[in-house]
Amino acid sequence: MKFCSACGHAVVLRTPRGDQRARFVCTHCHTIHYQNPRNVVGTLPVWNDQVLLCRRAIEPRYGFWTLPAGFMELGETTAQTALRETLEEAGARVALQPLFSLLNVVHAQQVHLFYRARLIDLDLRAGDESLEVQLFEEARIPWDQIAFRTVGQTLRFFFADRLKGDFNLHTADIETE
Amino acid sequence: MKFCSACGHAVVLRTPRGDQRARFVCTHCHTIHYQNPRNVVGTLPVWNDQVLLCRRAIEPRYGFWTLPAGFMELGETTAQTALRETLEEAGARVALQPLFSLLNVVHAQQVHLFYRARLIDLDLRAGDESLEVQLFEEARIPWDQIAFRTVGQTLRFFFADRLKGDFNLHTADIETE
Repeated sequence: MKFCSACGHAVVLRTPRGDQRARFVCTHCHTIHYQNPRNVVGTLPVWNDQVLLCRRAIEPRYGFWTLPAGFMELGETTAQTALRETLEEAGARVALQPLFSLLNVVHAQQVHLFYRARLIDLDLRAGDESLEVQLFEEARIPWDQIAFRTVGQTLRFFFADRLKGDFNLHTADIETE
Repeated sequence: MKFCSACGHAVVLRTPRGDQRARFVCTHCHTIHYQNPRNVVGTLPVWNDQVLLCRRAIEPRYGFWTLPAGFMELGETTAQTALRETLEEAGARVALQPLFSLLNVVHAQQVHLFYRARLIDLDLRAGDESLEVQLFEEARIPWDQIAFRTVGQTLRFFFADRLKGDFNLHTADIETE
């Protein structure tokens, strides 16, 4: 950030009075520009003993497998983001189940949230951001071709909970590689 | 947003190619400026059968009671935000317990997250943003002087779960008043 988005003048990095942190502050209109982590929200869609993955058609991690997920938008709830991304990336209609994982990815300035979800039918279709959409049994998950560590972690939590027959919310922090 | 924070030129509201939504786009350097909801994270601190509330020394809702909470900062995990805000606003050191509530506040462009927490001692002290800090038994909660609906909702979830002897994550959407 170099310029004030409100008035177009230069910003400086300065700790405002009563604040603990340096912020971008406008030297002209004095607007303080706060920056905060963003939420990435998605689903872990299930059909019998299989889970749905999408192969990415975009960078980063082109060609790798992911759960359907994306940035939460203004005007949406976390559940609405999860449903929208699942429809956009996999063409999939799901019944949303409880929130299953919350993963802090501090170095990416993101929080990743995944809901468990039950596929309503198998009318799937790769969206613009997916090369293909496929269902995988646990033994056939392409573990070495998973796009993001939050996705791998969420899948591992899921298969461990399924083995126990008891699903709970999992929280974890993803450290820099 | 009127100006590009990268180059200082005017932005226009336009739907980028391949996007579904209008974004602020710079007419000069073509940067797309995404805007996303922010996370507000806090705790529900407990001491025996009492819960801790802070009376706000700042607007909005000056003089009303709240759980310690605040905006998640870059470089923090959700748990770190919860611990920092609890220390800043109530001087309280807590042992964090599982995430307890996730509340979407779409009209405020926020997601509120509260962890249950156990107070480590009673060495409390109102921070700069609090007029006072106090412990309340359920029967003495000032329900008509609670600052935010996400706080009231989280307290109601808590007392209901405590009665059942079983705490679970609660999710809810807070509609416009």
